[in-house]
Formats: sequence, C-alpha cells, structure tokens
Amino acid sequence: MSTENDENSETRKSIGARRNPASQEAILDAAEYVLRQSGLAGFSIEAVARHARAGKPTIYRWWPNRTALMLDVYSRFKHVRPFPDTGTLRGDLIGFLDRQLLGFWSDGLPGLVYRAVIAEAQNDDDAAAALQDYQAERKQWAAQIIERAKLRGEVPETTDATLIIDLVVAYAWHHLLLGQLDEAASRIEAVVDTVLRGITGYKEVVP
Amino acid sequence: MSTENDENSETRKSIGARRNPASQEAILDAAEYVLRQSGLAGFSIEAVARHARAGKPTIYRWWPNRTALMLDVYSRFKHVRPFPDTGTLRGDLIGFLDRQLLGFWSDGLPGLVYRAVIAEAQNDDDAAAALQDYQAERKQWAAQIIERAKLRGEVPETTDATLIIDLVVAYAWHHLLLGQLDEAASRIEAVVDTVLRGITGYKEVVP
Repeated sequence: MSTENDENSETRKSIGARRNPASQEAILDAAEYVLRQSGLAGFSIEAVARHARAGKPTIYRWWPNRTALMLDVYSRFKHVRPFPDTGTLRGDLIGFLDRQLLGFWSDGLPGLVYRAVIAEAQNDDDAAAALQDYQAERKQWAAQIIERAKLRGEVPETTDATLIIDLVVAYAWHHLLLGQLDEAASRIEAVVDTVLRGITGYKEVVP
Repeated sequence: MSTENDENSETRKSIGARRNPASQEAILDAAEYVLRQSGLAGFSIEAVARHARAGKPTIYRWWPNRTALMLDVYSRFKHVRPFPDTGTLRGDLIGFLDRQLLGFWSDGLPGLVYRAVIAEAQNDDDAAAALQDYQAERKQWAAQIIERAKLRGEVPETTDATLIIDLVVAYAWHHLLLGQLDEAASRIEAVVDTVLRGITGYKEVVP
C-alpha cells in the first residue's frame, strides 16, 4: 500500500505499469460523469474507478462507500447555488425552499441522487452517518437565514433557528420522497407564511 | 389458476394435495410473525408463504410485492391506535405527533418497517404507488383533527387542513429518516405551538 504522500506526489506518475494517481476532484468529476451517463443503476465504485483511471483502494481511502461518494457529488451540484440573501426573512425562506430544495431536486439528477442517498441511509449505518453529517452542516448554514433576520430585528433573539429550518427542510424532504415536488412547489408561499406567523414576535420587514 | 371464488370456498379444503387456502388475515399474521422473528433481512414473500402454508401465487394475488405486504402489516400495527380526540386542536396535534408518529415509530419494529417501506419506494414504482395511496388515506383521516377544530370555532373555515397536517407529518418523517426520533420528540410542543400560531385566526380553546 502506498502512503497518501506517495499517492499525491508527482514522482508517482513515472511508475510504469501502476495507475496514475487521481485527485479527489478528478474522482468526483468521474463520479458525476458516471452518474450522468449510466444513472443510479450503473453507479458503482468500480465504474467510477475505471472512468477516473484510479484504483478502487484510492477511492475507498477517501469515501468509505458508494453513498458517501454519491453524497459528495450531490453536494458539489448544490454548492454552485448560493444561499439566498434577499434582505427579508420571507424572501430568504421562499428562495431556500424554491431554489435550494424543491426546485433543485426537480432538476433531474440531483433529486434522484438525493432520494437514493436517503434510501441507502435507511439500510446502512455508514450511509446514515454520512447523511446526518451532511444535514447537520447544511442546516447550520441555513440557520444563518434566521440569524440575519435577528440582526434586522425581524424576529426576536430567542427564536429557535433550528426548529424553523427543520420545519422547512422536513416539508421539502417529505414531498421529494413521495414524488410530489410539483404539489409542494405550488404551496411554497403558504408554507413560508404559516411558519413565519408561527414565530412569536415576527415583524415583517418591507424591503 | 383457480378463481377467487374457488379460493374462498370451503370445498377447496378437500382437494387433497393442493394447499389449503389462506385468508388475507392469516397471511398478514404470518407476515407479522416473520417480521418479528427474522427482521427485515429475513422478510420475503417466500418466508411468509412458508409460514402461512400458502402458495406464493396466493400472496401475489393480493400483494404485488414485498413492500405492499410490509405496508399492510405496518398499517395493522397502527390501526390499534385510534386518532386522538382530546377536545382541543393543540391536544389532538400533540397526541397525533406523539402517539401516531414519533412514539409509534420509537417502539422498535414499526419504525424499522416504515423506514424500509419509504426506502423501497425510492427505487420501485409499485412501492412508491403503495406508499402514496397509504399516505393519502392516512392524511385524509388526520385532516379530521382540523375539521373538528373548525366545528369548535378554534380555526376559521378557510384553514388549509392539508397544509397543517403536511407540516406535522413531514417533521416526523424527516426525523425518522435521520434516526433522530428522540430529538424530534423533545420538541413536540414547540412544533405544534409554532404551527398553531401559523394558522391565521387560530383561537386557543381552553378545555
């Protein structure tokens, strides 16, 4: 087994018959390519390794399983979409639900991939842990929407940001998993307005 | 192939080598037994057929796949728990979230079975259709909680019962699928109070 240092060093390329080292980014590129070309059914560590010209052990060094790799591809899709910052809590929550969640998933591959990740997390402890970590990180980001609203005085300092984000994310997940994204999207404003009224001391800011 | 009438008639029992007809109820009993004894991993149409002393075609006549059968066992667990009727909307929603959803799932097998059903619905169209039907039926029942509150004058006639029930059910699903039932259970009152304040024109009834 080569050390991680070996794997990343330039000299590694000259070792004739052995495979070139593949960077994490190159493996994610290959994983995305395989997902787009072959769909979920054709997505395996083996197929990604072949396409990345990497050894399977190289991939397993960074990703313990297929789900963790799939979740990282999904996360890369998502990172090109910045969190909304519209100047009002209402605008931000609508943008979050519309562009980060429901609309993002409607866009074909991301929704399919995320459904598969959630499904695998129900049967596999490693996949479940990966999903929990990802969710915790994303929700911490999303909570900034509420923190900004506190700074603007739209909601009291005591508002439970986690609970508000949980309600919004849960609504989106539920309809993704039931295959009802369109129905959910048609009620985005009603959902956000219900949640906003639910926050004690909420004062609408007119932008 | 015998007709359904043949299958249910008493005379069928006398046909020597052919298997005794198994009623739907007997098959559900067997399915529950197999689930309790062997868990999800050992749950198959084959194992249920063996235990019910029924032919696999008999089972497939009523349940198109493993998931549909699992969902019916789950539903039977649930039917022994009546929807709450406490006299207030707040009490009913807390009871619904606590006893019909989060607490019901914490009780071992029902939560495991429902997670498996939801996971399979992500990969299989028949399982997805079975889950959608089940959800639609359950939500129609749960909406009666809101309809009773309308009759008591707790919420306006125009309240969108579907949206309120969706928010509550979605919150519960999300935490079931993340393996965070305890965390979710610790915030039941906060969730219900947020949703109630979110209903325009909500007036708390003191029981």
